[in-house]
Amino acid sequence: MISDLKGAFSRISNNNKRSAIREILKLTQNPEIISFAGGLPAPESFPVDALDTIVTDMMREEGASVLQYDATEGVKELRELLLKRYQDQGTQADIDNLIITTGSQQGLDLVGKIFVNDGDVVICGLPSYLGGIGAFKAYGAKMAGIPMDEQGMSATLLEAKLEDLKQEGIKPKFIYVIPDFQNPTGITMPESRRLEIIALAHKYDVLIVEDCPYRDVRFEGEPQRMMYDLDNDNHVLTLGTFSKIFAPGFRIGWILGPKDVNEKIVIAKQSADLCTPTFVQKIAYRYMNSGVFETNLKKTIDLYHQRRDVMLAEMEKHMPEGVKWTHPEGGMFLFITLPEHVNALELFHKAIEKKVAFVTGDVFYCDGSGTNTIRLNFSYVNNEKAITGIKRIADLIKAEMLVEA
Amino acid sequence: MISDLKGAFSRISNNNKRSAIREILKLTQNPEIISFAGGLPAPESFPVDALDTIVTDMMREEGASVLQYDATEGVKELRELLLKRYQDQGTQADIDNLIITTGSQQGLDLVGKIFVNDGDVVICGLPSYLGGIGAFKAYGAKMAGIPMDEQGMSATLLEAKLEDLKQEGIKPKFIYVIPDFQNPTGITMPESRRLEIIALAHKYDVLIVEDCPYRDVRFEGEPQRMMYDLDNDNHVLTLGTFSKIFAPGFRIGWILGPKDVNEKIVIAKQSADLCTPTFVQKIAYRYMNSGVFETNLKKTIDLYHQRRDVMLAEMEKHMPEGVKWTHPEGGMFLFITLPEHVNALELFHKAIEKKVAFVTGDVFYCDGSGTNTIRLNFSYVNNEKAITGIKRIADLIKAEMLVEA
Repeated sequence: MISDLKGAFSRISNNNKRSAIREILKLTQNPEIISFAGGLPAPESFPVDALDTIVTDMMREEGASVLQYDATEGVKELRELLLKRYQDQGTQADIDNLIITTGSQQGLDLVGKIFVNDGDVVICGLPSYLGGIGAFKAYGAKMAGIPMDEQGMSATLLEAKLEDLKQEGIKPKFIYVIPDFQNPTGITMPESRRLEIIALAHKYDVLIVEDCPYRDVRFEGEPQRMMYDLDNDNHVLTLGTFSKIFAPGFRIGWILGPKDVNEKIVIAKQSADLCTPTFVQKIAYRYMNSGVFETNLKKTIDLYHQRRDVMLAEMEKHMPEGVKWTHPEGGMFLFITLPEHVNALELFHKAIEKKVAFVTGDVFYCDGSGTNTIRLNFSYVNNEKAITGIKRIADLIKAEMLVEA
Repeated sequence: MISDLKGAFSRISNNNKRSAIREILKLTQNPEIISFAGGLPAPESFPVDALDTIVTDMMREEGASVLQYDATEGVKELRELLLKRYQDQGTQADIDNLIITTGSQQGLDLVGKIFVNDGDVVICGLPSYLGGIGAFKAYGAKMAGIPMDEQGMSATLLEAKLEDLKQEGIKPKFIYVIPDFQNPTGITMPESRRLEIIALAHKYDVLIVEDCPYRDVRFEGEPQRMMYDLDNDNHVLTLGTFSKIFAPGFRIGWILGPKDVNEKIVIAKQSADLCTPTFVQKIAYRYMNSGVFETNLKKTIDLYHQRRDVMLAEMEKHMPEGVKWTHPEGGMFLFITLPEHVNALELFHKAIEKKVAFVTGDVFYCDGSGTNTIRLNFSYVNNEKAITGIKRIADLIKAEMLVEA
C-alpha cells in the first residue's frame, strides 16, 4: 500500500460521508426486528409475472440490440413515452428536456456535479432527503436548511434566507425541494406554496431542483401541479424515477429540465457510466407501453394507502399526548415529532432491543437539529407487523416521556 | 432561465468535455458508412437465446427480490463468483476486494472522484483510453502522458517523469494503464514491463490503476499475469467489465482493489447511484454460473480473431509503404501510424465522403500529439465490409501521401 493513502484521498472523498441511514439499516437487518427504518417499496407491488412475458417478447423481437450500448441521453422510445405521459398531464416540454439517469440518485449526483463548487450554498428543506444532501455536500456544498411548516418549505423563511445571502453577496446554486409527500416528512406543498417559492426563485434568480420520487403515489386529495409546469420558464429541473412506481432494482430515473442544463448533465453522465443499462430501459419501455404499468401503479397506491391507514389508526390508538405526526396523502413516510426533551437516538437504541426500528429524524436535518423526530416508513411492513411495531414504539415513547419528564 | 447559467456551472462541469469520439460517431451513423470508428462488441457475440431462459427461471425462482434495491457493493453471489474466477486464476483476494460498478466507466469516474483534486497529476499512456482521461480530467487532473513502445508504456520514460515530478515535489495520484490489448493501440505489456512499472510504483510510492476491459479476449500468445497479481501488495487497483465479454447493455463492471480504497469507492458510489441495477446483476450471476458464459466467450474470441486476421491480411495487401500498424493478440482495436506529415483528421473528412470511418488517434493523446495516427476497431464490422473498408482507407492514405509528399 502507498505510504499515505489517507492523505491521497480527494476533497470530494473526504466530504463524502457514509450514509447515517445505512448504518442504521445495518442494525435492523435482524429479521426478528420490525423495521420502519428503510425506504423500500413493498415487494408485493412488483409486477413479477408481467415482466417475464415482456422479456421473452423483447428478446424474440429485438434480440441483440437490447444488449448493446445505447445513447447517453437514454433509450429513445422510453424517453418519448415518459415525455408523452408528462405532456398528457399538461407539461410543455420536448424530447431534449427529458434524459434518463441511473436512478434519480444519479440525477442528484450529476446536478451536484455540474453546479456545485467547493463552498457554494445549496438550499434545502429542514429536514430533507439525506441522499440529496449527501450528494451535494460531496461536491463541497454548504447546505442552508429552511424550516418547514404543514405546507412544506416556509416561503417566508426562504425569502429571509435568500435576502440574507444576497446582502452577503452570495447567490445559492439551487433550491432543493421535494414537493409531494416529502421524504422524510410526508408533507405536500399546496399550489400556493409552490407558486410562492417559484416567485422567489425568479426574484432571486435561482434554480429549483424539484425531486419527485413519490409524486404518482397519491392516496387521496387533489394532485398538485409540478413546479416544472407552474414555472414553465426554465427555472425548474425535475427528477423522476421508476423506483417507487415500478422497480427500484432497475435503477431508472430521469430528468425533466432546461435543455442547456440537460446538455451539461449528459456530458457529465458520459463520464459517469456512458449510459444507463439498455436492457432495463427497453424492458421499462415495454412495461409502460403494455398498460400493466398503470394497473399495477393503482394496486401499489391501494396497498400503501391501506398500510398508511392502519399505521395512522394504530398511532391514534397508542401514542401518548404530546406526540405529533404528519398525515401524508401519499408516498411512503410519515414523520413523528416528540416532545422537545425526548431524544430519538436514545429511543432508537431501546427500540432495537425491543425488536422494532425506525430512522431518527436528525439525520435529515442538515444543521443537526431535529433530535426529537422520527421517520417511519409505511410501505414495506405488512399490517400485522405494523400493528405490533407501532404499539412497541408507542410504549417506548411513553416510558421515555416519563423518564425524561 | 436564470440570468447567468453559464457562470453557474461548476469547475467540474467546465472541465468535462463532450467526448471527441462521440462527435466522430455522430458523423458515422449513416448506415452506408463502413465504420471502424466505434468500440462496439459484435452483436453476433451476445447470448440472446440463453438469456431468455435465464430470465424466465430467475423470475420463477427469485421473483420480487430481483426488482428490489440491493447492496451498494453489489449483489453478493455475483461478487463471489467473479472473485472465484480470479482466485481460480491464482489471484489472492477476498470478498471485500471486489465491488460491482455500473460499467467500468463508473469505476474510472469513482477512482477520479475519490483521488483527484484540482491540479493533481495523473499519469497515463500516450495514447490512452479517452473515457479514462476524460473522467480524471473532469475532477481537475493534469494528465502526464508517457510514450509507449511495442511493449506498452515505456518504463524508462515513466521513471524519468516520476523523477522529474519528485524533484518538483509532486506526487502523482496514480498511473493509469491498460496492460492487455490496450485501447487504442492493441499493445500488450509483457510480464517484464509490468514488473518494471510495478517496481516504479513501489519506488515512487504511487498507486496503479489497471484497466482490463479486453483481458479475456485473447486470440493467441500467452496470457500475461494481471498487475494486481504481480504486485499483490495493495499498489494496484484493477477494473473489470462484462461489456466486451458478455453484454455492454448490462453496464456491469467491477473493481478488484485494496479494501481501504474500495471502502471509499463504495461511499462515493452510494451518492452516485445507490447500487448497480439488481436485475441485471442477478441475470449476470446466473449467466456466469450456467457455463454458457465460458462457451460464448470462446465463440466471441473466435469471431474477433477471425475478423482481426481478415483486417490484417487486407492491410498487408493494400497499405502503402511507410504506413505501420500494430498486430494485437486480442481485444478490439489496432492502431495505424502514418508518415509524420500525413494528417489523420484531414484523412478522416475525406474518408467520410468515401463512406468509410475511423477515429483519429490524436483524441487519445492527452498532449494533443499523434496527429498522424488512426484507431481501427475490428470487432464490429463483418468481413465483407472490412475488406471493402480497408481498401478504401488504404486508397485514401495513398492519395494523401502523394499529395503531402
